Amino acid sequence: MKIAHDDLNRLKSDADTEYLRYSKMDLRIDMARGIPSPQQIDLSMALLDVPLGNDYLSEDGTDSRNYGGQQGLLEARRLFSTLVGVPEDQIVVGGNSSLALMYECLAQAWRYGTPDSPRAWSQEPGGISFICVVPGYDRHFAMCEDFGIRMISVPMLDDGPDMELVKRLVVSDSSIKGIWCVPKYSNPTSTTYSKAVVETLASMPAAARDFRIFWDNAYVVHPLVEVDDSLENIYTQAVRHGHSNRPLIFASTSKMTLPGAGIAELAGSKDNTAWWLKAAALRSVGPDKVNQLRQVRFLRSPEKIKELMEQHRQLLLPKFERVHEVFNRRLGTFGVAQWTRPRGGYFVSLEVLPGTAKRVVELAAQAGVKFATPGSCFPYGIDERDYQLRIAPSYPDILQLTTALEVISVCVAKAAFDHLSAVASVE
Amino acid sequence: MKIAHDDLNRLKSDADTEYLRYSKMDLRIDMARGIPSPQQIDLSMALLDVPLGNDYLSEDGTDSRNYGGQQGLLEARRLFSTLVGVPEDQIVVGGNSSLALMYECLAQAWRYGTPDSPRAWSQEPGGISFICVVPGYDRHFAMCEDFGIRMISVPMLDDGPDMELVKRLVVSDSSIKGIWCVPKYSNPTSTTYSKAVVETLASMPAAARDFRIFWDNAYVVHPLVEVDDSLENIYTQAVRHGHSNRPLIFASTSKMTLPGAGIAELAGSKDNTAWWLKAAALRSVGPDKVNQLRQVRFLRSPEKIKELMEQHRQLLLPKFERVHEVFNRRLGTFGVAQWTRPRGGYFVSLEVLPGTAKRVVELAAQAGVKFATPGSCFPYGIDERDYQLRIAPSYPDILQLTTALEVISVCVAKAAFDHLSAVASVE
Repeated sequence: MKIAHDDLNRLKSDADTEYLRYSKMDLRIDMARGIPSPQQIDLSMALLDVPLGNDYLSEDGTDSRNYGGQQGLLEARRLFSTLVGVPEDQIVVGGNSSLALMYECLAQAWRYGTPDSPRAWSQEPGGISFICVVPGYDRHFAMCEDFGIRMISVPMLDDGPDMELVKRLVVSDSSIKGIWCVPKYSNPTSTTYSKAVVETLASMPAAARDFRIFWDNAYVVHPLVEVDDSLENIYTQAVRHGHSNRPLIFASTSKMTLPGAGIAELAGSKDNTAWWLKAAALRSVGPDKVNQLRQVRFLRSPEKIKELMEQHRQLLLPKFERVHEVFNRRLGTFGVAQWTRPRGGYFVSLEVLPGTAKRVVELAAQAGVKFATPGSCFPYGIDERDYQLRIAPSYPDILQLTTALEVISVCVAKAAFDHLSAVASVE
Repeated sequence: MKIAHDDLNRLKSDADTEYLRYSKMDLRIDMARGIPSPQQIDLSMALLDVPLGNDYLSEDGTDSRNYGGQQGLLEARRLFSTLVGVPEDQIVVGGNSSLALMYECLAQAWRYGTPDSPRAWSQEPGGISFICVVPGYDRHFAMCEDFGIRMISVPMLDDGPDMELVKRLVVSDSSIKGIWCVPKYSNPTSTTYSKAVVETLASMPAAARDFRIFWDNAYVVHPLVEVDDSLENIYTQAVRHGHSNRPLIFASTSKMTLPGAGIAELAGSKDNTAWWLKAAALRSVGPDKVNQLRQVRFLRSPEKIKELMEQHRQLLLPKFERVHEVFNRRLGTFGVAQWTRPRGGYFVSLEVLPGTAKRVVELAAQAGVKFATPGSCFPYGIDERDYQLRIAPSYPDILQLTTALEVISVCVAKAAFDHLSAVASVE
């Protein structure tokens, strides 16, 4: 991009004026994380009051109120089975957080190894590594960092991770024990992995025989477009290619019903679920099965879930459209930024002029808009090109969102013009 | 004990006949664990249907339905504060299992150390040790075993652990990093620690500066007698003696409301709760706050909890009385067994003729009564004298319980007489 010197001065001055104007508005907007709005949560209010007083037994006669039932209620496993395409007896349904299930799998492999591991992951001489698709989900990367697992970045392409690179790494480096994937409407790029990518992940040779795919299917039924993307079944593919233990599949109802009071699942091979259950017995008296009953009786069937998710979509779509509308109006002509137009999920990935992402966040924060953590979508929080930012438009109402987007746009422009003008003055 | 030869033969023959009679009844009774009965759970049926639809906000305005709030809702922390005597801002309220909180504390100390640790517990040269009061709670010991923590047994006396031994061990052995305590109506002996014991635990010098008391106050409001035992406040004592970080205090509502759907807490110093919260952020999006609201609105106040627990007591007491009544009638005169008469909690500790506990369990199982795991109250599951068994009378109805107790008594007698007769024949 090349802007003439005079134009640049004018643009810079305009941006300064605009920024000053917003700075004086005493804004206080926090939209840093992908949180459903109160209006979305209201869609599930009936769940709060599902009457259970006379009917607390599971289909198989289990008293949902008492201890036990580590694997989760039959009907909860069946409902997830329809969502993730794994038989119900190979599904574990836990508490309110799929993140907790992921952590437990990682911690368990760390201390004991997986069913296929020659030793505990913590005992591997030279340490272990994970492939991290970038930009990706900060909480995945934070776990790796915490365990001291080396992170190897692989770029996200239009149809999923760069599989040529993934294949090359995984076949040659036996320290690579896993890959983090958000395979549908990925966080933050909203990429859905193509059938070819899923098949390659399931079939590719791996130097580590205990290689695991952490398949965080967080947005399994969360389209923003009318026709939901279809995602190839990783488990079926893994079985077909003789790697049935490879995928660990996670999902939850947190972004269907109540974010803080949903239920989460882990699905995979019989070996993997038995492995998880064995360790779970040590630390728990079983999940909250009453809430499982409540969730299942509210969500009922895949069809009902689809109806509910359509209502979510109607609430989310205008916000995502507003992101594009404001960015396009404010930034479309300068070429100093580009952004994704998500087909689903909770995020827009915004790419600003390299070298300015941190500055953009700083400027916005000074103007009262907290919207992103620079580098958060990269391992160790380091965005080397300082260019990527994650936008989470779900929580604020549309007016507040619009204001925030205007501010962000001004900051993107101001940071870019300041940067270009500094470069120009050096030249 | 000495029984004349002829008497022994007659007793042995009577026991054989009785045992045969019960064996033919095709019984199938499982009373192996301390599980509340359906009638007890029914006391909290109103909790299942606490209406929240129009009132899901916490006192401080937190939307209980959404993400976040890792420390738990204010009102839930306050309610626990009244039970465990620690300020509400030094309490964390989590999900449905205090066991999970204990595990997390142990796992966290293992990986990072405590706020006072020179290094992670896993990195201590020579490994670490815990004091285990015996007989004690199998799940505590199982965790130690799993982490490879050495267990040092200390006998339970009438007023708590043998503190002379505890003091001597803790001051001299810096590998001892913790002690497991169920300080009130202890599992399985129903011992409540005396004021002197609690004060000594709080004040004694420890070679390890990061020594921790895992204070599992599982039966904090669970008396079987009319006047609840009073337990000295370990936290206050620890503060007074300059060891505020020493106790980690656990409790839950699982045996007040719904066993599988209660809420649990961790209380302690600010350092300890901050330490726990820091690691929790990595693995969780926060606890189920909706259930916290439900629990608090149902339990309401310490007075209401007391009323509820009195109703539990009325259901439990006849069962515990039945244990004594049957054992006394069946075993009282022979001197081959003794048993506790609990003032609270969920268990009776039965001591049979040394060398026969395993045989008793085996005989009972063959007659269709599963009631204990020999050795389960000892580290590594090893009861060297083969004499102690745990009775959990809460779950079966009184008729089933009575039958089970008759069977157990017959098995205790039969095993004893068989044993004595074998010994006599050797002599």
